[in-house]
Amino acid sequence: MALYVMKFGGSSVGDTERMQRVARRVVEKQEEGNQVMVVVSAMGDTTDDLIDQAKLLSKEPPSREMDMLMTTGEQISIALLSIAIQELGAKAVSYTGWQAGFRTEAVHGKARITDIRPDKVLKSLQEGNIVIVAGFQGMTEDGEITTFGRGGSDTTAVALAAATSADYCEIYTDVDGVYSTDPRIVKNARKLNEISYDEMLELANLGAAVLHPRAVEYAKHNQVRLIVRSSFNHNEGTVVKEEANMEQGVVVSGIAYDKNVARISILGVSHVPGVLAKVFGSLAAEKIDVDIIVQSGVQSGKADFSFTVALSDREKALKVLEGIHAELPYDEVTSEDGLVKVSIVGAGMVSHPGVAAQMFDVISKLGVNIKMVSTSEIKVSCVIDGAQLSEVVQALHTAYGLDTENQAFVGGPKDRR
Amino acid sequence: MALYVMKFGGSSVGDTERMQRVARRVVEKQEEGNQVMVVVSAMGDTTDDLIDQAKLLSKEPPSREMDMLMTTGEQISIALLSIAIQELGAKAVSYTGWQAGFRTEAVHGKARITDIRPDKVLKSLQEGNIVIVAGFQGMTEDGEITTFGRGGSDTTAVALAAATSADYCEIYTDVDGVYSTDPRIVKNARKLNEISYDEMLELANLGAAVLHPRAVEYAKHNQVRLIVRSSFNHNEGTVVKEEANMEQGVVVSGIAYDKNVARISILGVSHVPGVLAKVFGSLAAEKIDVDIIVQSGVQSGKADFSFTVALSDREKALKVLEGIHAELPYDEVTSEDGLVKVSIVGAGMVSHPGVAAQMFDVISKLGVNIKMVSTSEIKVSCVIDGAQLSEVVQALHTAYGLDTENQAFVGGPKDRR
Repeated sequence: MALYVMKFGGSSVGDTERMQRVARRVVEKQEEGNQVMVVVSAMGDTTDDLIDQAKLLSKEPPSREMDMLMTTGEQISIALLSIAIQELGAKAVSYTGWQAGFRTEAVHGKARITDIRPDKVLKSLQEGNIVIVAGFQGMTEDGEITTFGRGGSDTTAVALAAATSADYCEIYTDVDGVYSTDPRIVKNARKLNEISYDEMLELANLGAAVLHPRAVEYAKHNQVRLIVRSSFNHNEGTVVKEEANMEQGVVVSGIAYDKNVARISILGVSHVPGVLAKVFGSLAAEKIDVDIIVQSGVQSGKADFSFTVALSDREKALKVLEGIHAELPYDEVTSEDGLVKVSIVGAGMVSHPGVAAQMFDVISKLGVNIKMVSTSEIKVSCVIDGAQLSEVVQALHTAYGLDTENQAFVGGPKDRR
Repeated sequence: MALYVMKFGGSSVGDTERMQRVARRVVEKQEEGNQVMVVVSAMGDTTDDLIDQAKLLSKEPPSREMDMLMTTGEQISIALLSIAIQELGAKAVSYTGWQAGFRTEAVHGKARITDIRPDKVLKSLQEGNIVIVAGFQGMTEDGEITTFGRGGSDTTAVALAAATSADYCEIYTDVDGVYSTDPRIVKNARKLNEISYDEMLELANLGAAVLHPRAVEYAKHNQVRLIVRSSFNHNEGTVVKEEANMEQGVVVSGIAYDKNVARISILGVSHVPGVLAKVFGSLAAEKIDVDIIVQSGVQSGKADFSFTVALSDREKALKVLEGIHAELPYDEVTSEDGLVKVSIVGAGMVSHPGVAAQMFDVISKLGVNIKMVSTSEIKVSCVIDGAQLSEVVQALHTAYGLDTENQAFVGGPKDRR
């Protein structure tokens, strides 16, 4: 008898019919002889609808009350799922985050879990119940309701699995698992059977729709065996674990890309100490995340810098640089959009030199100009012109031996936002 | 500085604009130098919508999960009201039933309050907050979420007032207060300035829309000073308290009626011991409430019985009687609808003999036949033909000196269902 956590997102329980399908799936798992805990998100657009209602009353509603408001979404889901499961003749009990023992720090909107006291959940399991827990929510020691922020339900599932020493934590989604790259771009993208926590983290962009990075970190820290799989079929999904039994010869596991990229260049900056701190400190103060940073050669005491920010932050970043012009003399600031960041990810890279060189070679042979480069132990990223994205990803996919002939892609790639 | 509980029902917070109006009203009360607690129900149709969702999944959804589901309605209300109040610049904190310290017995759907631990609420008040509490809900000692059943938010308000020794518990509604009778029938119905708990209980039918009997009982038991008033204007409402300072000469305080009445007669029943127990025991077993019971004269060992039930229970009651015919020989069962029960209510009745006689006189002078009569210490009820309801109520209203000339009826009598 194995102990499972099964997590279903908002789209999996978006209406009555889907709720019933999830109920059948869960009961089936129990009937196979397992103990089952289910973590569920708010139904479909519920969370957005609640936010809209709050915004009608205040432009910046206080975060404590937003937590109070939004946690009702998951509470509705757990109650309805429990009703659907009991209708099938199985025993089920639903618990809010605070009832399931999720204790968090006293921060609203993005609280971290400090402790889980799963006594109630474990007792309920022993009594033969399917235990349903509301994702995304917990309670402070003072009895205040908190939420975990984006990807919160994934985190609930992983944390619950860790706290109850569950054998598996299955994340159900609308695709078959984690793919070697985006199947919308590369037709013969391959579903990965296994992937390591670190690779999964690097593939966050590719995998964001299936697994939140924070949940992956939590899983890695607690060695929770994650499985990403489809709620629409019974295909085996992708197992995420510490050391994936690397498929032979596979150096690169996946290829990710990010279209939400803008490049900003500051030209002719006086090359004095503290310049970088000034620029990036000012951006950080405005909560603008900077990704790749490149400094080009120094000429007559002046230097050029380039960095990338999210496309949506471009205007804000340009204003920040304008604002510090008096303290930081520079000749000119330019910016560029229409770019894309392409990354190859693979734990095998560490022991295989030349992987980055091969990437540059593949890209340049397509006549594509590499504008910026960044590397980590298991990742190489290149910023290129967005117009040639498909060609580049396809060529890299082939070059690193990721193409598969018999790809059975099930579920909606359109939903993999 | 006085301590107030202000209770607003679902229609008072039915949309954004109404929510904002309630927020202004609450802040105004605080600005007048008072400490304020607010109890609020689920917005408009929220509760019904949630029930509909559950019914799509199960004909008889388990009551534990229905409590889990329905309590989200009030949780949404308290969060939004807190946001609206804070938007006006006041300090506010919302609490669910369990956070506010409402402990109940372990019964779902209609739990009774066993204990209130208002420490958190009181501390929050001392910090200058307007405290907002979700109506209708509590928690068992085991941390299970429960609801109070119909009229639950009124009960929350009264119980909160009792537990915090509040000076006033104001029930805001869509009419100006408790009326001497239904203003839809009697144009010059009078708003009562004061009424006793006992009278209010008897007027439940008339006052059901403004105050739930259970809350009145709780208020009487704990001597909570209740005020029923309009959320649409600042008119003084009706004060409900132990011994109302009776307006001079007023013997009858109000006239209520009930159209939901059917009369059932069992003719020619063998007059042996245990007959009444058999009939009414069988009806009770089917959860049919019987109101007035009349037994007419015995002839040759046979008797006739008549009793009233809710119109909606008539068919069910007739089936019950058919079912016991074998054990209980009778000649015939007849039933009659189109009836109405008219009641005069007044604490002053006890010391004024002849009040009932006056009622019979008024009714008979209109040529209306009285079909059944029932009396209590502070009430006389007559069952008459429904066609003459208006005439009878108007005549009684005048006869007992309840008419007023300058009636300013504000708010929608159409909503006083």
